[in-house]
Amino acid sequence: MELNQASNEQLRDWEKALTEEYQRYQASGLNLDLTRGKPSAEQLSLSDEIVEILGGDLSNQANIDLRNYGGLDGIAECKALFAPVLDVNTDEILIGGNSSLTLMYFAVLFAHSQGFGELGKSWLSEGNTVKFLCPVPGYDRHFSICEHLGIEMIPVALNDDGPDMDEVEALIKGDSSIKGIWCVPRFSNPTGTVYSDAVVERIAKLGSIAGSNFRVFWDNAYAVHALTDSAPDVASLMAKCKQFGTEDSVYLFGSTSKITYAGAGVAFMGMSKANLKAFSKHLGMTQIGPDKVNQLRHVRLLKDAEGLTAHMRKHAAVLKPRFDIVLQNLEASLAGTGMAEWTAPEGGYFISLNTLPGLAQDVVRLAAEAGVKLTPAGATFPYGKDPENRNIRIAPSVPTQEEIDRAMKVFVNCVKLASVRQKLAQA
Amino acid sequence: MELNQASNEQLRDWEKALTEEYQRYQASGLNLDLTRGKPSAEQLSLSDEIVEILGGDLSNQANIDLRNYGGLDGIAECKALFAPVLDVNTDEILIGGNSSLTLMYFAVLFAHSQGFGELGKSWLSEGNTVKFLCPVPGYDRHFSICEHLGIEMIPVALNDDGPDMDEVEALIKGDSSIKGIWCVPRFSNPTGTVYSDAVVERIAKLGSIAGSNFRVFWDNAYAVHALTDSAPDVASLMAKCKQFGTEDSVYLFGSTSKITYAGAGVAFMGMSKANLKAFSKHLGMTQIGPDKVNQLRHVRLLKDAEGLTAHMRKHAAVLKPRFDIVLQNLEASLAGTGMAEWTAPEGGYFISLNTLPGLAQDVVRLAAEAGVKLTPAGATFPYGKDPENRNIRIAPSVPTQEEIDRAMKVFVNCVKLASVRQKLAQA
Repeated sequence: MELNQASNEQLRDWEKALTEEYQRYQASGLNLDLTRGKPSAEQLSLSDEIVEILGGDLSNQANIDLRNYGGLDGIAECKALFAPVLDVNTDEILIGGNSSLTLMYFAVLFAHSQGFGELGKSWLSEGNTVKFLCPVPGYDRHFSICEHLGIEMIPVALNDDGPDMDEVEALIKGDSSIKGIWCVPRFSNPTGTVYSDAVVERIAKLGSIAGSNFRVFWDNAYAVHALTDSAPDVASLMAKCKQFGTEDSVYLFGSTSKITYAGAGVAFMGMSKANLKAFSKHLGMTQIGPDKVNQLRHVRLLKDAEGLTAHMRKHAAVLKPRFDIVLQNLEASLAGTGMAEWTAPEGGYFISLNTLPGLAQDVVRLAAEAGVKLTPAGATFPYGKDPENRNIRIAPSVPTQEEIDRAMKVFVNCVKLASVRQKLAQA
Repeated sequence: MELNQASNEQLRDWEKALTEEYQRYQASGLNLDLTRGKPSAEQLSLSDEIVEILGGDLSNQANIDLRNYGGLDGIAECKALFAPVLDVNTDEILIGGNSSLTLMYFAVLFAHSQGFGELGKSWLSEGNTVKFLCPVPGYDRHFSICEHLGIEMIPVALNDDGPDMDEVEALIKGDSSIKGIWCVPRFSNPTGTVYSDAVVERIAKLGSIAGSNFRVFWDNAYAVHALTDSAPDVASLMAKCKQFGTEDSVYLFGSTSKITYAGAGVAFMGMSKANLKAFSKHLGMTQIGPDKVNQLRHVRLLKDAEGLTAHMRKHAAVLKPRFDIVLQNLEASLAGTGMAEWTAPEGGYFISLNTLPGLAQDVVRLAAEAGVKLTPAGATFPYGKDPENRNIRIAPSVPTQEEIDRAMKVFVNCVKLASVRQKLAQA
């Protein structure tokens, strides 16, 4: 039934039935968790060969002793393997440790307080509060970095084709203290949005609108994480930038955290040679070099672009049924009710759902009290504040298919219950 | 011959003979390197078992999936293994990635601009230029961190028993903007100094002299890196601090970079529970967790304190003959000349030599021009400036014994040549 079509009497009946159903869930002692944006054990096992893959053979192209210090920018084989993932040249990539988040933190930190070497002075030196544009909903750990470093966040709308570029361009033109924008261009966290070619082109042009110290933080975390072979690709930002002469305005990030082992993977960062030079100089103050032995493990396991694609198909085979169960439940119970809208991503790790305005916190609380843990409402917005209190992130990768199905039954009940109760309160 | 006993004629003869010897070295096309403070391939091979040691078995005490995200503070087994190295409890240690330098960088960064949680506000918030005490000669990468973060460095003398504590205490009492001191308490880089119990006790008391935001940066990089079983130990800083109620005033660091693989080891940081809470909160902004699989490798290889000791004896067996060759050459050619004084460390990676004032750069240049590369003069001082221009760091771990012997023959010739020429110029 469409919520707005229901009479007050129908709403009261509906509320009663939903409450009874809710109480049954509460009584059944569930303990399910849809918060964890991480691979399942089944996915991690796809890479188990990596642990012993070296067989004691550490031979490598450059014939260096991978066991020793050094090699701040990573090993050549790893550059060759991951440069195509970011669509950059092998002299435009740095291979780091196990965390792209650390590379992002350093990239923001260095830009904020250290500057860009020959390319420009630090943001701080300009004397204004630094601001970032944050397409919302987005990834909470991006927002945490900004908050930690005292950077003011300005939310901008994330449309079906990417950030609202009219808004982005207007804001940047009007305020030179805006120094960055967070982007997850393919299968955005949490909406699954893939940026259109037109949006990527406009993002590549931001470098010519903004000052020289502006940077796009292009977190291509799900670059190769499609659920189907037909999922849309994202245009090459670096290629577009080279076309417009803006290649110094972008930092690209990626990692194998959701390719091999989430905790023992390899992170990488693509950027212009001028940026790489300045960034490496700062990075060299914080470490002597990454774990090159682990980089070699990744090369031996994934081999090349083809090996990577084949490996990611195995992940898709594990993930796709989980996404399908979430979507089937949403479709079966919420379609046509006017109570929610949601995304049907073709890759990534999340499904994003919007309740009616003002209900996300209620739904998350109701679900928690019935034994289903959801990501806190607001987490997908800067400062944890969803102005409309409606966005909920669903992460189906870790629970089993059966668990997801049970959790979703509870979830849709909670959405409906909160919606009907709100409607009744307004009547 | 004692330099000061030589007549001008003797000096001229001496200069001639030394120059001829020098020219022979120059003509012989040497290419030797005494700069690299890193393990040799022979030492790295002592740990080669580590690469395949897991045999696919990732079982662990906490029964967590080590392959996945999480565990910011490291795995329990690794805490148990390395807590004794820093002489802290297992709830006073954090096990990180492959670089203690990164932990140090973060520790200074967070203290400087983020603060200590409930323990205190950031150094920056006090409004003064932050200053650090730097016992000299010391480790250039400590100094780089300070320089990178805009912290002013004040050199203090490193005596045979540790930093000159009269000087340290007086400076701290007189200037509340002094917020830290760098210490390498056992086998200091480059002198090999082991801090005496009395010095450790006075360092533990600094927390009650200085303000609550003062921190001792205790880089125990060579904690278990003795060359002989009889090498002096260093007192437990944390134990002393607990005695004086100053345990929040110290950060302790260590790593396996010179135990297992220099590039693929495990770093750790010991601190009070209150510090650990505040530090972890900041660290969690920069990463989700360390490589726990590699942590388990270290536990399987080194097992326990006994295993660690046995392993370090193998390192000593490789290193000790190299140190002996350096010392034998210095003794044979420079003892009694009044041209140099040097340390005879019982552990660590370096031998420190002081030329006559004003000659270190000359000696390094002469050696380079004869094919022997030495660490740049001044590198062991803040801002790369040795005020007396006399300290030279000798790193004998990487070259073969024969190479060290040849390099040292050149080195002592250069020291003597520079000394005699200086004396002649003064005559």
